[in-house]
Amino acid sequence: MEAFRIIEEAGIEKLSLRDVARRVGVSHQAPYKHFPSRDHILAEIVARCFDEFAVFLGTRPPSDQPHEDLQAMGLLYLEYAQRHPLKYRLMFSTPLPDPRRHPRMMQNAHHAFSILRDRLQGMPLRQTEPQSTRSTDLDAMFIWSTLHGLSSILHSDMLAALKMSELDQRRSVQRCFARLSLALSGNDGTPAIPKRPLRKSEARSSSSTRRR
Amino acid sequence: MEAFRIIEEAGIEKLSLRDVARRVGVSHQAPYKHFPSRDHILAEIVARCFDEFAVFLGTRPPSDQPHEDLQAMGLLYLEYAQRHPLKYRLMFSTPLPDPRRHPRMMQNAHHAFSILRDRLQGMPLRQTEPQSTRSTDLDAMFIWSTLHGLSSILHSDMLAALKMSELDQRRSVQRCFARLSLALSGNDGTPAIPKRPLRKSEARSSSSTRRR
Repeated sequence: MEAFRIIEEAGIEKLSLRDVARRVGVSHQAPYKHFPSRDHILAEIVARCFDEFAVFLGTRPPSDQPHEDLQAMGLLYLEYAQRHPLKYRLMFSTPLPDPRRHPRMMQNAHHAFSILRDRLQGMPLRQTEPQSTRSTDLDAMFIWSTLHGLSSILHSDMLAALKMSELDQRRSVQRCFARLSLALSGNDGTPAIPKRPLRKSEARSSSSTRRR
Repeated sequence: MEAFRIIEEAGIEKLSLRDVARRVGVSHQAPYKHFPSRDHILAEIVARCFDEFAVFLGTRPPSDQPHEDLQAMGLLYLEYAQRHPLKYRLMFSTPLPDPRRHPRMMQNAHHAFSILRDRLQGMPLRQTEPQSTRSTDLDAMFIWSTLHGLSSILHSDMLAALKMSELDQRRSVQRCFARLSLALSGNDGTPAIPKRPLRKSEARSSSSTRRR
């Protein structure tokens, strides 16, 4: 789509119907034939972003390993944000047109969110409060917050200010995934690291007794 | 500081030495007497933001309840971002001047990060991998990611697109804090919710035996 190329080159704030028109080689008024307003163009672009993002997140179908699935989806999330920073910013960090007037944009946003939520369905979630109808939505918000924040921080100038090495950045990503698993299910998806080798009798009892 | 008012009114991108000069009622060249370049002004503003942010996060001194302390700090974090959106954006979402050339900005950024990290020192952190020298930094990155992402999402237009009610937004914040506690220590800082009232003998044993 032509508008994407303009966005990539000029930044979101510069996008205008005039830019779109010039880019596609038609007169200034031509885009109005297809889209009644700038908001309609933006809503269409954002709708396509959400569609592409949802397809990307769903690239790896779920297996029977919910922790691995969550980590795989998280890595895809971070990869999308890294590969398409302006599309990502368009979806999550810029003023969007009124969703009530642009139902396709809203539907596609819902669909992308549902990919996050669906990954939670297969996990044995540890309960933190009485379950409610939208409980899984709240956990999806938590995962989304962590991934969105991590992605934003990794692409900000803050890590340079904190002198964080590339190795520690990669380790931060791994740590976030381990903590997410621990947060959701009460275990991090990997075997516990014993301080010394367990004897057989201890190994059996450690699965039913909390070690303090 | 005058520059702050200009930022609040005009947005970060519009900040220029000319704006600062006009605002403080001096000629265009005057600010150069105090700051050699636009980067030096920006670095000074950002340094003051980090300083103010760190003071704000430290408003409530730590108690002997690490989960409550973490939640209190998290709420202060979200409150600062809500009350000072442009200062927040300046620190975390805009291009910063080269930190090597602006040591005070870097020191203040480090100090703000250390407030997050210090809150972790008092928690009995559940280990997810062999401990390393910067292990607490990695966990601070995790908390920061969740808080930064949550704050960004709460102030984005995405929640309108997802039709999330204000009640569910507040519940999302609570859920994030519960999941953060669970992620860090393996318990969510609140007593488990029993499915039926416990008898005294069970209540005693439930503190040492994991219920499955």
